[in-house]
Amino acid sequence: MASETPATSAIVTAALIVIGDEILSGRTKDRNIGHVAETLTTVGIQLSEVRVVPDETDRIVEAVNTLRARFDYVFTTGGIGPTHDDITADSIAEAFGATIDVDPRAVAVMEPYYKAKGMKLEGARLRMARIPSGADLITNKVSGAPGFMMDNVIVMAGIPDIMQSMLAGVLPELRKGRPMQSVTLEMDHPESSVSEILRAAQGAYPDVPMGSYPFVRDGRYCTNLVLRSADPARLHSATTALVEDLERGGLRFTRQS
Amino acid sequence: MASETPATSAIVTAALIVIGDEILSGRTKDRNIGHVAETLTTVGIQLSEVRVVPDETDRIVEAVNTLRARFDYVFTTGGIGPTHDDITADSIAEAFGATIDVDPRAVAVMEPYYKAKGMKLEGARLRMARIPSGADLITNKVSGAPGFMMDNVIVMAGIPDIMQSMLAGVLPELRKGRPMQSVTLEMDHPESSVSEILRAAQGAYPDVPMGSYPFVRDGRYCTNLVLRSADPARLHSATTALVEDLERGGLRFTRQS
Repeated sequence: MASETPATSAIVTAALIVIGDEILSGRTKDRNIGHVAETLTTVGIQLSEVRVVPDETDRIVEAVNTLRARFDYVFTTGGIGPTHDDITADSIAEAFGATIDVDPRAVAVMEPYYKAKGMKLEGARLRMARIPSGADLITNKVSGAPGFMMDNVIVMAGIPDIMQSMLAGVLPELRKGRPMQSVTLEMDHPESSVSEILRAAQGAYPDVPMGSYPFVRDGRYCTNLVLRSADPARLHSATTALVEDLERGGLRFTRQS
Repeated sequence: MASETPATSAIVTAALIVIGDEILSGRTKDRNIGHVAETLTTVGIQLSEVRVVPDETDRIVEAVNTLRARFDYVFTTGGIGPTHDDITADSIAEAFGATIDVDPRAVAVMEPYYKAKGMKLEGARLRMARIPSGADLITNKVSGAPGFMMDNVIVMAGIPDIMQSMLAGVLPELRKGRPMQSVTLEMDHPESSVSEILRAAQGAYPDVPMGSYPFVRDGRYCTNLVLRSADPARLHSATTALVEDLERGGLRFTRQS
């Protein structure tokens, strides 16, 4: 892979595909979406869509091909283990029209891991060394079996700690935009009390997205106002203007960040 | 709406669209996907896809129109509050080519709620009474402002307790299939130890999906094997066969359900 690419001011977008019947059945609660979202936002990659799809080749291929054409990067989680329902690698190969086979590079990184555990890398375990031709490996420091990056598609494990290790490992290789910065104003008022002030402020600063997120605390409806921009000067100006409007309206808030 | 529809043996499918920049930025961690997935599975509706999309009309319209044509029901969460970034109701109207305005039925259910709090239903709060023409209201027992059902699209709040109340309220109105039942075998072995036995069992019972879900406990890789079917007799047969194979292979497991 290329060495670390410097941040640019362009927006870099991504989608995440979570692969797994167990998420759709509710048996397993997803713990990856939030981590991927937060991590990408921090480094300057804008997560623009998430899809959760079942363990079905056609559905995976469709999601991968739709989203890789639309966004700069597509991340996937899940379905790269050793069992018959782990069909992600084969589905990625199909999406790209590539061949797939046991990859000697993957075998080479997996063998020491199994040897250290007194296990042999054979049979079903070799299934985890199947990598589409043309892909680069992504190191798995937790359990050996690698992820991979095929063109702009980044294929990671579903187990959260392995996924997190793979994501951290691949991020330096990716293009990034300017990280989005945000300011949160936490208010002890329901959304409806502040919506007209917020609408006016958003009208004056259309380039600084302002979101309003209700939450309940001690049975009371409260609101977080969040302003976001990759331009610190614009974020500061918009925040100052909104804060003045809120104070003029007698609305209490605490600034969270 | 029609009175409660009896369960049939047909499969009833659904998709969920989670609407909100705050989920994609990682600022808010979604707490609705897991609940919707588990609830629908329990009543016999098969959640077949989830999409998380930003607060952008075009993206919401595209997701709604794609998924409502493909699945029996589409549920949405988020974006029905009183602020300028709450654009779900207007987006649904646009998806259906319907008009939208303040709905007297919504005003009638919201007024007592605000009156009890000593607040007036005016200004931005009236925005929450905007309902596409032709939609049925969904009661919100928590905070008054209703959700709605437009054809096969069910529009709910994003705040988890309100969403859960709306989902519980609308479920009796929906068609259901036979609920999927499942058996979980929890194993103290990594996936790769069981993958060949599992593949053979799946081959013998292709109509009973068998999933393998790795997890880590006390630093050891363990595996849940999950068999699922809407047909209790087939589920029982497949489980019996798999259990015999596991015992023959000397693999320890505990039956979880």
